[in-house]
Amino acid sequence: MSQENVTPDLARERSKATFDVENLAEFMIGGRDRLKRKRFLQNIAIQDPFFKKQKSWSFCSVEEQYDMGLSKSIYIQKKLQEMGITDMQEAFYYRECAAAHENSPLGLHYAMFLPTINKQATPEQKKKWLPLAENYKMIGTYAQTELGHGTFIRGLETTATYDPKTKEFILDSPTLTSKKYWPGCLGKTSNHCVVMAQLYTQGKSHGPHMFMVQIRSMEDHSVLPGIEVGVIGNKFGYGTNDNGFLSFDKLRIPRENMLMRYSQVHEDGTYVKPQNAKLAYGSMVLIRSSIVSDAARGLAQACVISIRYSAVRRQTEAYPGGEEPQILDYQTQQYRLFPLLASAYSLQLAGKYVFNTYLEVNDQIEKGNLESMPELHALSAGLKAFSTYEASAGIEVCRICCGGHGYSQASGLPKIYVDVVPGCTYEGENTVMMLQTARYLMKCYSRAKQGQKLPGFVQYIGQNLNKKSCMSEEVALGCLVMAYEHRAARLVEAAAMRMQSLIQGGKKQHEAWNGSSVQLFWAAKAHCHLFCVKNFVDAIQAKSLSSKTVTVMKSVCQLYGVHGILENLGEFMQDGFFSGEQVGYLQRKMLALFENIRPNAVALVDAFDYPDMVLGSCLGRYDGQVYQALYDYAKSAPMNQTEIHIDNPMSYVDNPVSYVDKPMSYDRQVEQYR
Amino acid sequence: MSQENVTPDLARERSKATFDVENLAEFMIGGRDRLKRKRFLQNIAIQDPFFKKQKSWSFCSVEEQYDMGLSKSIYIQKKLQEMGITDMQEAFYYRECAAAHENSPLGLHYAMFLPTINKQATPEQKKKWLPLAENYKMIGTYAQTELGHGTFIRGLETTATYDPKTKEFILDSPTLTSKKYWPGCLGKTSNHCVVMAQLYTQGKSHGPHMFMVQIRSMEDHSVLPGIEVGVIGNKFGYGTNDNGFLSFDKLRIPRENMLMRYSQVHEDGTYVKPQNAKLAYGSMVLIRSSIVSDAARGLAQACVISIRYSAVRRQTEAYPGGEEPQILDYQTQQYRLFPLLASAYSLQLAGKYVFNTYLEVNDQIEKGNLESMPELHALSAGLKAFSTYEASAGIEVCRICCGGHGYSQASGLPKIYVDVVPGCTYEGENTVMMLQTARYLMKCYSRAKQGQKLPGFVQYIGQNLNKKSCMSEEVALGCLVMAYEHRAARLVEAAAMRMQSLIQGGKKQHEAWNGSSVQLFWAAKAHCHLFCVKNFVDAIQAKSLSSKTVTVMKSVCQLYGVHGILENLGEFMQDGFFSGEQVGYLQRKMLALFENIRPNAVALVDAFDYPDMVLGSCLGRYDGQVYQALYDYAKSAPMNQTEIHIDNPMSYVDNPVSYVDKPMSYDRQVEQYR
Repeated sequence: MSQENVTPDLARERSKATFDVENLAEFMIGGRDRLKRKRFLQNIAIQDPFFKKQKSWSFCSVEEQYDMGLSKSIYIQKKLQEMGITDMQEAFYYRECAAAHENSPLGLHYAMFLPTINKQATPEQKKKWLPLAENYKMIGTYAQTELGHGTFIRGLETTATYDPKTKEFILDSPTLTSKKYWPGCLGKTSNHCVVMAQLYTQGKSHGPHMFMVQIRSMEDHSVLPGIEVGVIGNKFGYGTNDNGFLSFDKLRIPRENMLMRYSQVHEDGTYVKPQNAKLAYGSMVLIRSSIVSDAARGLAQACVISIRYSAVRRQTEAYPGGEEPQILDYQTQQYRLFPLLASAYSLQLAGKYVFNTYLEVNDQIEKGNLESMPELHALSAGLKAFSTYEASAGIEVCRICCGGHGYSQASGLPKIYVDVVPGCTYEGENTVMMLQTARYLMKCYSRAKQGQKLPGFVQYIGQNLNKKSCMSEEVALGCLVMAYEHRAARLVEAAAMRMQSLIQGGKKQHEAWNGSSVQLFWAAKAHCHLFCVKNFVDAIQAKSLSSKTVTVMKSVCQLYGVHGILENLGEFMQDGFFSGEQVGYLQRKMLALFENIRPNAVALVDAFDYPDMVLGSCLGRYDGQVYQALYDYAKSAPMNQTEIHIDNPMSYVDNPVSYVDKPMSYDRQVEQYR
Repeated sequence: MSQENVTPDLARERSKATFDVENLAEFMIGGRDRLKRKRFLQNIAIQDPFFKKQKSWSFCSVEEQYDMGLSKSIYIQKKLQEMGITDMQEAFYYRECAAAHENSPLGLHYAMFLPTINKQATPEQKKKWLPLAENYKMIGTYAQTELGHGTFIRGLETTATYDPKTKEFILDSPTLTSKKYWPGCLGKTSNHCVVMAQLYTQGKSHGPHMFMVQIRSMEDHSVLPGIEVGVIGNKFGYGTNDNGFLSFDKLRIPRENMLMRYSQVHEDGTYVKPQNAKLAYGSMVLIRSSIVSDAARGLAQACVISIRYSAVRRQTEAYPGGEEPQILDYQTQQYRLFPLLASAYSLQLAGKYVFNTYLEVNDQIEKGNLESMPELHALSAGLKAFSTYEASAGIEVCRICCGGHGYSQASGLPKIYVDVVPGCTYEGENTVMMLQTARYLMKCYSRAKQGQKLPGFVQYIGQNLNKKSCMSEEVALGCLVMAYEHRAARLVEAAAMRMQSLIQGGKKQHEAWNGSSVQLFWAAKAHCHLFCVKNFVDAIQAKSLSSKTVTVMKSVCQLYGVHGILENLGEFMQDGFFSGEQVGYLQRKMLALFENIRPNAVALVDAFDYPDMVLGSCLGRYDGQVYQALYDYAKSAPMNQTEIHIDNPMSYVDNPVSYVDKPMSYDRQVEQYR
């Protein structure tokens, strides 16, 4: 990036770095060529006058955000076509920059509607729908979640009942709670929708299946009879997306609109069930691994902003008459930010691992080998939860570390937060995800107790728990990994013992499960945490890293491990695995690592290689000109385009402004309040 | 509240309660009469058609939010006058309901401008300004924070230089970073401002002082020459408030505009310094104690919403074919919500204590006795930080516990969050606050080591650290308090030892302080945590509580203590204070307490006595009709008032929508990117 205009503080930080930022940036993205390609594509977006002239999203109404999102999204798609880009990763780099942290009103058309047709439709259905969808005659989304039903798919209430007389399905929303609610891109954009509904045929229920439903005219976009559709109203973030509701009043659709690749309903109503229900796991793993990477990216960007700003911001003379230090020199600021920087690296590496493993496992699945799936499925569920929790909380810490300015939309941090945090609840609520992982761990534990060998990464389960930690003052990476293995193994065993004792005490299986679920949650979290530590340690052995980079990354990795132990210290101490003296080593090491990392802190965030347009932050600018940027942001606010907003605020005494609208939704209750 | 329309689930929850909700509600608010009066006042707001017809804030643009905020604020003030309400607490009850979680554009006129005149102005100045301010001819705010300067007041750059020739002060903003930035109510509303500026007279600097500055005409509200003022742009929340920037170009104001009650500048430029600089502490304590209560209230409201919703929401059959349980029956949900419920009680009680103690200490100060001030000042600083951290993080957990729906503005939770979380950074950044507390603790420690007796609550410092915990399976409250005392005493000592060893190793005092500041932070946090536990234990001994209420509150108090230990277990175990066996008692007790509290969970949140209008939540409604409310909210969204938003989204291909505005603030950097 250009060194022009860089503040002396940031220039000095960069000159102090002890490693080559490019070497680390290439490693993190997966090679020099990819880094160059990414920069090339992002530069095209950066230099495009179309994006440059857009109003700042934070000054737009929700309607404007939607319009702008749709317009940008279509423009981006046209550009990608012009550039002949078909590679998903390349398209991602371009989009990441052109519409940073914006959830496109067409996003699910690409991410869910087209892939679902590809994976769930028969060849004839594909032939009919794909050309229309690829040319945007059909614009579609995927509708599963209902007002009263989320993660538990079997609880969905929308019904699709087959009528053999007319060879049609009757789609119906029999209750208030059965209305589809939340699907993205649904309220205003889509004219079609893949709907998940409970299939009934020949008087029997066969569980949730997918149906292609047209909801709006392909001519004039009007809503079709039998359909009620609209947006669900405003959200914490996601202003560009028309998340919607949808309900059916005994809507008839042709039999051919059921997506019949795996299960079928014949003309006479005979139901044919799918051969292998577990095939659907693949796409869940893919989605969850991409959420891990999204969360990691959000945290990394927050670290870039907060660490650069902390190198520019100065506060409170350290001693009377002394210069105000960069706030990054305060130990408390390092204590809050450096472990998050380490987490950001760890989670990015974890996301990469899960994605690459998915590609391998997917190959095996195509060959009919489902063996590796359960382990990966369990890991991806838990990591999705672990990463979204860690990243969301971490982003807020980064924001708060910027002091008051972090609260301005100019910091870019609120936007990153509201973009990442719904990852805790969508695509499987986090607690449910953790308990899925725990279920797998319990199976592994009982296999280990029966003397069976466990696959790959879960081999630590069932290990001898009587050992003590090998931790010394040096804090070797091996001793860190051993500590996390011990903790996870102990918590897995503790959860299993609790289950067992509840069952022995007369509880039913599901009662014992619920009565142990806090401990199961702890076990799953420890498992994911162990994975992140171990994967980090493995990753920095890569040959492409120079020895100087390895030295720095080893400190970052150690900090990740040490800080994680200190934050969860009780879990490592309860059984006497660590002595008090060893804890002292860890505490001193953590403070020493802060000093190690300090000179490289800015270089370490530079290596994430996010251009300013991706960050969208006045505080995180590469050049550090934060105050000018904040002032420019203020000056550009719409309310500053007139000198006087209202010449006499007190005139409201006699003429109050009322934005009269529909009554507020809690009116009925309020009127009856006592 | 009306029992009509209450869902069977919530009705059953309420009928199961083992204590009288009214008894607890009266205790929390401070007596039956006050509870009745609060309800009376809030009912007036609830039934007022003016508030009822307002558009939901979440569908308003920022400009509309500001207008509505101003209009409401003035309406409220008029009503309070009509009702003859002058008591601050009573006005608060009415406002809390009439403009829930809205930060009035006139808020600082009442909360800072008028009180500052009252406290800092001379009798002559008061006589001149108060009538104008009370009649809204002068509308004012208080401007301290600058673009480059926040918590550290001595770093402010705005100057006020006395010119004896004209008997004027020259106000100037010599740098970009000296511009005032963030003051509330400044951008558009105020025509006057109390400005904090560095006083220079007779060639000498005398530090920051306050000056009354007119910034806009009292006739037509136009901006006066020499002044630049505007809003700072959009924020995470605070949409109703016109937080602004302000700078001076050698603006001349009369000498009489310096607020001269405590320090003066004579006509010839002679400076007279104040007699006692510590008098200003009082109002800081007051503000910080009110932030503790604000944070506690936010967390309590989030708990009401999340716990009521968890009693209505059902998910995932526990066993095949079984009914989907209320999500409040899941142990993991209890694990997330019940400790927060306990925190909400604890923080409310802590806020009450600090406020009441402030009133006592304030009386003593008026009598010239400053003795109790340092302890209270240290406690209020730390508690401000402790409570805002705990409450903010807790509100987000409550939100995430509502699953996807928590992310909708209809849940009311995002608004509560963005209203509470800036408390972490305003009125003293939290880390700085904690370290202020730590500074006091270090003084106490060295006094204790010199054998001096410490005042009241800090007597635990310097105690013998060789004891072991008395914890048994019953988990007596006394053993909980002892554990927190031990932990705080140990961490205070550890921080002091670290300081000492760094100084002995040759570090300067301020380097040693910084190099110990993580441990100082831990010590201060432990001190505040101990206070909250101890104060909770003391509070539930109150005579006004019935024995049934005490039984329930004892469980809540135990949970607060037990959960806090388990969350910070390492700090209680590092020196062997707890044995592994005792930790087992605590873990089992926590799970048992969840079962104890479960039947009373809804009643415990009802006892906070927030009417629906205060909560502003579709999910937290007293009647539990959450799905109808969510659907109504969706239907009322402005985008649903037309069937078709754009008839052919694809037409944007050729005609992209652009909301062209000022270029984005990071443009300059972006253009130069490689």
